[in-house]
Amino acid sequence: MTTLQEIGEDALIRRLTRLLPLAPDPLAGPGDDCAVIDPGPDSPTLLLLKTDALVEHVHFLPDTPPRAVGWKAIARVVSDFAAMGGLPERFLITLALPAATRIEWAEALYHGMGDCLRAFDAVLAGGETSSVPPQSATVIAIAATGSVRREHLVLRSSARPGQPILVTGTLGGSLRGKHLSFTPRITESHWLASHFKPAAMMDLSDGLAKDLPRLAAASGCGAALDRDQLPLTPGCSPAQALTDGEDFELLFTCQPEQLEPLQSAWPLTFPELPLTRIGTIVEPAAGESLSGGWDHFAPAILNPKS
Amino acid sequence: MTTLQEIGEDALIRRLTRLLPLAPDPLAGPGDDCAVIDPGPDSPTLLLLKTDALVEHVHFLPDTPPRAVGWKAIARVVSDFAAMGGLPERFLITLALPAATRIEWAEALYHGMGDCLRAFDAVLAGGETSSVPPQSATVIAIAATGSVRREHLVLRSSARPGQPILVTGTLGGSLRGKHLSFTPRITESHWLASHFKPAAMMDLSDGLAKDLPRLAAASGCGAALDRDQLPLTPGCSPAQALTDGEDFELLFTCQPEQLEPLQSAWPLTFPELPLTRIGTIVEPAAGESLSGGWDHFAPAILNPKS
Repeated sequence: MTTLQEIGEDALIRRLTRLLPLAPDPLAGPGDDCAVIDPGPDSPTLLLLKTDALVEHVHFLPDTPPRAVGWKAIARVVSDFAAMGGLPERFLITLALPAATRIEWAEALYHGMGDCLRAFDAVLAGGETSSVPPQSATVIAIAATGSVRREHLVLRSSARPGQPILVTGTLGGSLRGKHLSFTPRITESHWLASHFKPAAMMDLSDGLAKDLPRLAAASGCGAALDRDQLPLTPGCSPAQALTDGEDFELLFTCQPEQLEPLQSAWPLTFPELPLTRIGTIVEPAAGESLSGGWDHFAPAILNPKS
Repeated sequence: MTTLQEIGEDALIRRLTRLLPLAPDPLAGPGDDCAVIDPGPDSPTLLLLKTDALVEHVHFLPDTPPRAVGWKAIARVVSDFAAMGGLPERFLITLALPAATRIEWAEALYHGMGDCLRAFDAVLAGGETSSVPPQSATVIAIAATGSVRREHLVLRSSARPGQPILVTGTLGGSLRGKHLSFTPRITESHWLASHFKPAAMMDLSDGLAKDLPRLAAASGCGAALDRDQLPLTPGCSPAQALTDGEDFELLFTCQPEQLEPLQSAWPLTFPELPLTRIGTIVEPAAGESLSGGWDHFAPAILNPKS
């Protein structure tokens, strides 16, 4: 008898998804921040699909302000559209919670969702509510459609050796509040896709130590990280910057010749948001091994937030 | 302090959805079995969006065979596409479950999902997994896209007084097994949309006593039910047929002049599936009041399955 925590999250997902039929185009299935559907050659945009979930006691606590939980539930998904160079459009909200929940809590949750939907010009398309048993955790599942202009699409699988690795903002310390109030990097992603299109990109949700190896592996490469260059959230250690998770910053690579003009132009456009080169994409065998970061099904001792 | 169970499910949904931004086109928001998105006049099909959830102890039990749970999770959503005259296409699967869950349980669940996806030519587009606290219920949230040919789209809001009300199959007794193994009425819906396009349609998920008033109210009408004509699952009472829920049959209305030719043609095409006229759409004031059916947030005494 084997449990999920003996397998870990990434291996679990691999074991489960191989049991299901997939579209012929691998971009239209799991593997990147969003699935990418091509509606046909006449369409200037591609359809993006994404799902995500927030669980009480895992992503928020019973006493977390519900309006902040609502913002976070939508903002996490918006961040995944930013990671592809796209925009969010239509949201499906599934809410599973105890019947004894106060209506005021649920309404504040939805006020927070509304704040974030309005901030990014997205709308509600539908939803579902279900009760859970009295002592069960509340679960909020969010699915959404989005779109990306064909020429703006950025995948996580197209990094190549020699490309600089960059990250927006600062890393670490999400639990002190940022994980509830962050701004998804939609504006920055759109500017990048329009002016300095990244070679590869993803958003940082589980910590750099977990996510950078994912980007490198998806690209068939390794990553050499310059730990001295990590942009630390004030008061955070490099270890926290690597493993706290829930930074929701953009992690991307660019062509080597783009680096200098990008680093010159960025502060003129985003004077308050750091952009930092933190390493270089290398051949797979030359990459370093990183450990840590958030794993839903790892033993508690390996998870920084447990 | 007011709890969800003092409000009830339909009122809860009304109170929450009014807090969120909606698309200008009401069809693209909540209210029908699926949201309907028009990609533009050049597209022969419309995009359908749907989300749904299964919760342990509510929709299945810890000892329910997981492969049957997986079939049900997908089939419930497929049934919503049938309710619009459409077809399912791409699925997003969100799984929130305890880390101590056995991998064999999760793999059997996905085998069941795969069975149903393959049966209806649908594919996995993406997913998300999360842990829940050790004693929490497992939650499976399913979101999906589908499509419907413009001329096949059937809404629940377009019933008019004088139209016969029909239902496929038999009603009641879902808990004896049907709720785990039902076949969504995709074939029947497609045949109806092609040959005897219904005036209004929905699928029966919460029991006729809950769902027929929803169809009537969405259409601004009432419903006169002929209780003697209810097609009972063998061994079930009329009360069970009205309130058990999870029948996943098609409930629809047609033009009065369609009734006779439809009733003649149906058994030639679907000899093993009953089609029964169970009443007539009437003016709102002339409709009868039905009570019962499944409400996630009603006090336990009102719920047939509690």
